[in-house]
Amino acid sequence: MFDVAIIGLGAAGYTAAVYTARYKLSTLIVGEDEGGMGVTAAEVGNWPGEIDIKGPDLMDNFKKHATSFENVTHKQARVESLKQKDGGFSITYQNGETDDAKTLIIATGSNKRHLGAPDEEKFSGKGVTYCATCDAFFYKGKDVAVLGGGDSAVEGAAIAAQVANKVYLIHRRNEFRAEPFWVDEVKKKDNVEYVLERNVTEILGDERVTGVKLDKEFNGSDTINVDGVFIEIGSIPSTALAEQLGCEIDERKHLKVGADMATSVPGVFAAGDVSSGSNYFAQFATAAGEGSIAGNSVFTFLQAEGSN
Amino acid sequence: MFDVAIIGLGAAGYTAAVYTARYKLSTLIVGEDEGGMGVTAAEVGNWPGEIDIKGPDLMDNFKKHATSFENVTHKQARVESLKQKDGGFSITYQNGETDDAKTLIIATGSNKRHLGAPDEEKFSGKGVTYCATCDAFFYKGKDVAVLGGGDSAVEGAAIAAQVANKVYLIHRRNEFRAEPFWVDEVKKKDNVEYVLERNVTEILGDERVTGVKLDKEFNGSDTINVDGVFIEIGSIPSTALAEQLGCEIDERKHLKVGADMATSVPGVFAAGDVSSGSNYFAQFATAAGEGSIAGNSVFTFLQAEGSN
Repeated sequence: MFDVAIIGLGAAGYTAAVYTARYKLSTLIVGEDEGGMGVTAAEVGNWPGEIDIKGPDLMDNFKKHATSFENVTHKQARVESLKQKDGGFSITYQNGETDDAKTLIIATGSNKRHLGAPDEEKFSGKGVTYCATCDAFFYKGKDVAVLGGGDSAVEGAAIAAQVANKVYLIHRRNEFRAEPFWVDEVKKKDNVEYVLERNVTEILGDERVTGVKLDKEFNGSDTINVDGVFIEIGSIPSTALAEQLGCEIDERKHLKVGADMATSVPGVFAAGDVSSGSNYFAQFATAAGEGSIAGNSVFTFLQAEGSN
Repeated sequence: MFDVAIIGLGAAGYTAAVYTARYKLSTLIVGEDEGGMGVTAAEVGNWPGEIDIKGPDLMDNFKKHATSFENVTHKQARVESLKQKDGGFSITYQNGETDDAKTLIIATGSNKRHLGAPDEEKFSGKGVTYCATCDAFFYKGKDVAVLGGGDSAVEGAAIAAQVANKVYLIHRRNEFRAEPFWVDEVKKKDNVEYVLERNVTEILGDERVTGVKLDKEFNGSDTINVDGVFIEIGSIPSTALAEQLGCEIDERKHLKVGADMATSVPGVFAAGDVSSGSNYFAQFATAAGEGSIAGNSVFTFLQAEGSN
């Protein structure tokens, strides 16, 4: 039985592992997607100490750090279920195998929000994607639409503009809530067209995406022809596994945590985008901060239990 | 008038500056000690992504990042006072000069706690120091005492043992609350002697330190002869400047902040060791997390004020 199992291979999980490793706890860190949401950041400019680093490179540094400790077991696997058991918790994977741990740190991050438009799922992977910065490269010389007004959307438009022929940035409001840094980066591009105060009501296409339909006309038409649609309209905390344990969810659908990152279930802690911590500000820096606190809290919890 | 003035040149302050810079706010970052408490860490093993880095090098990376933005003004100066003024705050330096800013981020960190022993101040800098890892190098081949049982003390003993002839690790309890990583590192040294359940009641010496007096005999004597005494018994949040503005202090003497790192005074935010955030867990990672939140909150505050 591990002292702690960390569910999630993102910034919060890897940081927690560095801490529990240094506390000399036997640590399992497991998840499906290495690097979590962090790998979707094309350019990271706000991880302190690194003026400019690619998300996948930063996450690779995190992973190397966490796995540099001999008391850390790193596993890439899809966790199907979490259950309470005597003296701790049991983790069941998609392939039926299991692991046990005395404590858990839920660092499952979040998933991209879907638009809910007709045919959205049908065209998923056939022109519809949920990570502009990951997939823009496949649309070299083509026309694409980016939907949304936050950091991911505006950064996505800036990155897509580097390779695409034309980028339509479609946003339901008339201003962006993204970092001004990225808003300025988009302004510098001459191949980005702003389609503001418009919603996409339908994804158009046959085998693949050929366009989007708008709720209001734009330049005399309610459709825009594009080969790709990048949907970047926010994310939803991945709380499903924690909910299996009965962890309380707050009004914003995040895992409710205290200052020590403890959830409502004793022995279960949370860190990163899935949690209600850090004023809901989902950043590499806050994920790291929360991961360190969760690691410390697990150590304190096990010491109090006398089980370590 | 700057949009924001960040008081403190440590991990929290520099991270806040990276964020306010990217929000395109005119940013002043000012403090007396470059790198803050971060430079006192000889070896940093828990900054995610860096398996092993020296504190001063890490803080230098932070500074380079923050000062890479043209809208950031970096100033090394001792702040004497902070005052409210029309539309913001006024900062007065020791040399009488002033700066103005619409908002403040207090990132003044903490100061090392003093023992309160007779002659402690007299021998300060003459054998008594408050940073084992900074000063151990000056005690090559000598005998030294490290006082305390937390991370700084135990790390300090491990570092001092690399250069000193003998290290006495004097702690009032019989176990250490330091990270097990550092406790193990000390155990590996054969020139560290544990002096547990003892308090130092007096610093002995003439022109310079010659020893310490204990409250209980150790190996048949109540004195230990040493050339250096490293006092590492914790730290006290540096709240004096914020208190001039009337910012509320909590029961643990930290600046009381909400989830958004706002203090009780509108327009004044806090981050890092000085704040009550992050479950009082003072780490590089938590300082960075809080700095990012404070930067974001300043941006939101100024937008709401319509003053930006």
